[in-house]
Amino acid sequence: MEGYLVVLITTPTEKGEELANFIVQNKLGACVNVIPEVKSTYWWKGNIERDRESLLVVKTSSRKFNELVDRVKEAHPYTVPEIVALPIFAGNPDYLNWIGESLE
Amino acid sequence: MEGYLVVLITTPTEKGEELANFIVQNKLGACVNVIPEVKSTYWWKGNIERDRESLLVVKTSSRKFNELVDRVKEAHPYTVPEIVALPIFAGNPDYLNWIGESLE
Amino acid sequence: MEGYLVVLITTPTEKGEELANFIVQNKLGACVNVIPEVKSTYWWKGNIERDRESLLVVKTSSRKFNELVDRVKEAHPYTVPEIVALPIFAGNPDYLNWIGESLE
Repeated sequence: MEGYLVVLITTPTEKGEELANFIVQNKLGACVNVIPEVKSTYWWKGNIERDRESLLVVKTSSRKFNELVDRVKEAHPYTVPEIVALPIFAGNPDYLNWIGESLE
Repeated sequence: MEGYLVVLITTPTEKGEELANFIVQNKLGACVNVIPEVKSTYWWKGNIERDRESLLVVKTSSRKFNELVDRVKEAHPYTVPEIVALPIFAGNPDYLNWIGESLE
Repeated sequence: MEGYLVVLITTPTEKGEELANFIVQNKLGACVNVIPEVKSTYWWKGNIERDRESLLVVKTSSRKFNELVDRVKEAHPYTVPEIVALPIFAGNPDYLNWIGESLE
């Protein structure tokens, strides 16, 4: 059975909608919700950094995940972009089918 | 053992809090966080669409999931609403118990 | 193999960034995104309550989860704070390694 994923990706705030469009245009994801501004705190090279970022919530199929990672890494301004996938356990069946069909 | 879920649902921006209230009132979810405005990009009938939406983050029990899907589909203005469930792997035990008790 | 988690935690709006800093400073999480304002609806002592909250999205390792729960419960103003963990199924391998290294 095909599996579905929610994939979280962070970007600089000015890049969120551009990357969302890239993902949908290239059928790497069926739907992307961009949370326009989150405040991020993280370790980087021994210091605590704070940034404003956008958070993308991508709905996709597991068969697209490796390609999504490869293409987003190429398009993304960060050296090590955050891309993490959460498994969808269940859903509105019509919506899950729609994800699959949108990515064909 | 009872399982717990985080369920993501999108709505038109003006409907998010109304649907959150409907879900809690009807004990379909114990707690709903509404992210008031996200920017959504998705395929629909062969075109890329963009919309402002609200994103609901519902905490519920797996035993309520089928009823949640059925009732939200009835109450929701979209033909194919996004409803996707992510499994909760672990949590604050008191909070997980509170989810279960709130839904009785 | 080490597992990775996305952990969701809600706080009063004025406490979100402080708790994010506490989590990163104490190496309980490698990165925290704070969604500054969500509207929460939930059952509490037989009534439906509504509050403005912040929603923290923590990226961490499963080996840190018990300590994260214990320390956040101590630092958190609520009696029963929401702390729920979602398993990361897959990700940008460099990013997952970075989570692990940041928590050493």
